Amino acid sequence: MTRISSKSSGRISPAPTIPIALTVVFLGLAAGICCGPAGTAARYRETADGLRRTGLADEKAYDLLRRITAGGPRLTGSPGAAAAVDLTRIMMEELGFDNVHVESITVERWERGEAEEARIVDPGPPPAELPLSVCALGGSIGTPPEGLAAPVVEVRSFAELDKMGTAVAGKIVFFNRPMDRTQPEPFAAYGGAADQRVSGAARAGRLGAAAVLVRSLTFRLDDHPHTGLMEYAPGVPKIPAAAVSTSGAETLSALLKSGRRISVRLRMSCRDLGPVPSANVVGDIRGTEKPGEIILVGGHLDSWDLAVGAHDDGAGCAASLEALRLIKALGLRPKRTIRAVMFMDEEFGGTGGRFYVQDAARRGERHLVAMESDRGGFLPVGLAGGGSDPAFLRRLKAWSALVRPLGVAAVGPGGGGGDIGPLVKQGAVAVSVIPNAQPYFDVHHSALDVLASVHPRELEMQAIILATLAYVLAQEGI
Amino acid sequence: MTRISSKSSGRISPAPTIPIALTVVFLGLAAGICCGPAGTAARYRETADGLRRTGLADEKAYDLLRRITAGGPRLTGSPGAAAAVDLTRIMMEELGFDNVHVESITVERWERGEAEEARIVDPGPPPAELPLSVCALGGSIGTPPEGLAAPVVEVRSFAELDKMGTAVAGKIVFFNRPMDRTQPEPFAAYGGAADQRVSGAARAGRLGAAAVLVRSLTFRLDDHPHTGLMEYAPGVPKIPAAAVSTSGAETLSALLKSGRRISVRLRMSCRDLGPVPSANVVGDIRGTEKPGEIILVGGHLDSWDLAVGAHDDGAGCAASLEALRLIKALGLRPKRTIRAVMFMDEEFGGTGGRFYVQDAARRGERHLVAMESDRGGFLPVGLAGGGSDPAFLRRLKAWSALVRPLGVAAVGPGGGGGDIGPLVKQGAVAVSVIPNAQPYFDVHHSALDVLASVHPRELEMQAIILATLAYVLAQEGI
Repeated sequence: MTRISSKSSGRISPAPTIPIALTVVFLGLAAGICCGPAGTAARYRETADGLRRTGLADEKAYDLLRRITAGGPRLTGSPGAAAAVDLTRIMMEELGFDNVHVESITVERWERGEAEEARIVDPGPPPAELPLSVCALGGSIGTPPEGLAAPVVEVRSFAELDKMGTAVAGKIVFFNRPMDRTQPEPFAAYGGAADQRVSGAARAGRLGAAAVLVRSLTFRLDDHPHTGLMEYAPGVPKIPAAAVSTSGAETLSALLKSGRRISVRLRMSCRDLGPVPSANVVGDIRGTEKPGEIILVGGHLDSWDLAVGAHDDGAGCAASLEALRLIKALGLRPKRTIRAVMFMDEEFGGTGGRFYVQDAARRGERHLVAMESDRGGFLPVGLAGGGSDPAFLRRLKAWSALVRPLGVAAVGPGGGGGDIGPLVKQGAVAVSVIPNAQPYFDVHHSALDVLASVHPRELEMQAIILATLAYVLAQEGI
Repeated sequence: MTRISSKSSGRISPAPTIPIALTVVFLGLAAGICCGPAGTAARYRETADGLRRTGLADEKAYDLLRRITAGGPRLTGSPGAAAAVDLTRIMMEELGFDNVHVESITVERWERGEAEEARIVDPGPPPAELPLSVCALGGSIGTPPEGLAAPVVEVRSFAELDKMGTAVAGKIVFFNRPMDRTQPEPFAAYGGAADQRVSGAARAGRLGAAAVLVRSLTFRLDDHPHTGLMEYAPGVPKIPAAAVSTSGAETLSALLKSGRRISVRLRMSCRDLGPVPSANVVGDIRGTEKPGEIILVGGHLDSWDLAVGAHDDGAGCAASLEALRLIKALGLRPKRTIRAVMFMDEEFGGTGGRFYVQDAARRGERHLVAMESDRGGFLPVGLAGGGSDPAFLRRLKAWSALVRPLGVAAVGPGGGGGDIGPLVKQGAVAVSVIPNAQPYFDVHHSALDVLASVHPRELEMQAIILATLAYVLAQEGI
């Protein structure tokens, strides 16, 4: 659309054609007008407006993300992850955070290695070989140096696999159940297909399979394989596990329908390198009245190795740093401590999140609220928080009026995140900013998770919301 | 994030880490539970679920868009626009619509021509020339064949220009007020800066300027100029008008701050070609009980010429066609007529929309509702409708429960669109699906408005919402 003025009328209107006042009237807000939460929201209106204007004007979250991703992938235990620990500590110091420090942990290091290739072998006639786009799943063993080759059998579920039983012995099991695209919530579709990636090798290994190929977890049909964590089971032979691109999966499946004895040749040199030292990175705005009470914002610093993890989870780290920067930029002095944590090793098991609650530094601290951002840096569309506590939800709904100008309209129960799970178990209230998830799995765990796939304003909006909620919570408590 | 299972617990959970039930409780919905609208919504729940499942499974909106955009740009009056008229008529016939026809109109044709270039001339020392990324604004006259060169003066507002007065005579006026990025609503920021593009040439021409350069209307800092309609004023000399990329604008502005006499050399061969025949394209699902009562969905078929207009407004056309396709795919037989209209010439003045209401074909028709999609094919985040009628808004809020699974949470008054303006004046109720507008002006009217910038699921969601609302409205009336 371009209609700014109409040629016929000659009228020039600087306003857009559709002067829509998108307003949402919340039951919670209406109910709260006379009492606490809505009145609280009104008191913070000016502060929220200031955070929003400053954030949108500067768009610094993207600059922070650019710096975090400039060093390349940050796979748990890799030199890239170690460099990111140093970098984010330095960034926190430059931003003037208090109490900046790293908290040492030990993580398991896995590496992809040099070789990673697969070819479809079709006996014909005529005989043919086709390249197949694959990548090792995180934690997989490699193949023998010369690779392995075996006939392929396709299944769509563990039930189908179990029915085949030992007929799959010596073969490559190809898990090809797509994410259910009729499911509007992409995380639910992901959750409904990820068992193949996580446990496929263990389930097929038990039956004597030689290796597994797993259809990539994305709605898109393209040539990018998507990696992610897989797990072996105790007492079950370990077999190599690779993701295959959705296009490759379609090709392989079509060839298998021919009835010919289709094989795949797979070569991967990935391997475990054992335990290495790593760290979480922590920085605060110290509370003026109750410094031992913590409002935590954070993301995970580690990424997968196929790209720089701009969305997963550079975005969460950058938004958290930017949230504290905004609060400082406005000269706000929160009563309680607002803390940014860059958790290490979400992708390979959540070591950082588990160790965070045990760290000696936690003595004397009480975490009131934990806000983890790990669903991509896309447009924020909602808030979730308080688990199933209706009283907290009522307050969150009232406070959401402060970020309504950013378009946040849906507020519901829930909230959470892998790294803050242990904190929530200890009583911290989880609050989550919910971004648009539709494009998330297009890039998730693939070579497409690059800086250019993040929108500067959408990322900034997440940071502004984090800053607004963190500040209100630091003043009001829970 | 990848956390599907936790290594520590060994538990495999197919559910996502954050089991968030994003729910929005609407005052309107709550108020309507006992009475009409909520009960109506409940009756259509199964139909809405079917439309959603079918839409998401097939994702045909993107296929339709691919076809519409495959023929290249569709500038009003161009051969590309004529081909798009034929194509969409054929597509409607293939989709089995009723009453498929074109309605002839006459439009003014403008073309960009071959030459379009600019260079910054810096007298130095040392003397230098720099390329400047420009494009003619729609409707501009060209320069003399050899181009023109003149010193540049920068202004940020018409007030600043008027203060300079005839000091700008013979010079190139450079309008460089950016879109206000602190404004969270991009359409408002666009509306606040577009006067420079629309009226800059008339305002500067009155003072004797030689030409105008206008900073492109986008938040992004890049090298893509963004075109759009400009208008001359009666009795004021016509001067050439070009958009300059935001990066180019920054460079030019920085050079002007040096105090040196910076000139620009501009050459453009754009020109008006006079009136040519064109057409709107119309297709229906004929109502079984009240065929003369129309629920209209539509977009505009014309685009700018720098790209294929995938978002503006191929997306609106594709979503409208897909909405009718979905209703037919489910075998629904609406009581009132549901009509798709591909309007011609939104970008150059809205000829198609104005002629639509006057066409003889309108005799005996009554348009109850008009839904124009012309804000890009991005994630739908809200609904607006009914102007300022609280009764209609109450019903829209209740019906919005049907599309809540797609994430639509904000419902407000308003609605509208350039092409349906004349229908709304005659009493039709406007309803709009509001998409995420944050990325819209990144691509708007530029070479970046390509198919790859549209997300198939996000576009499909718009079509599903249009189909759902159109069907309910066709059954219920207003």
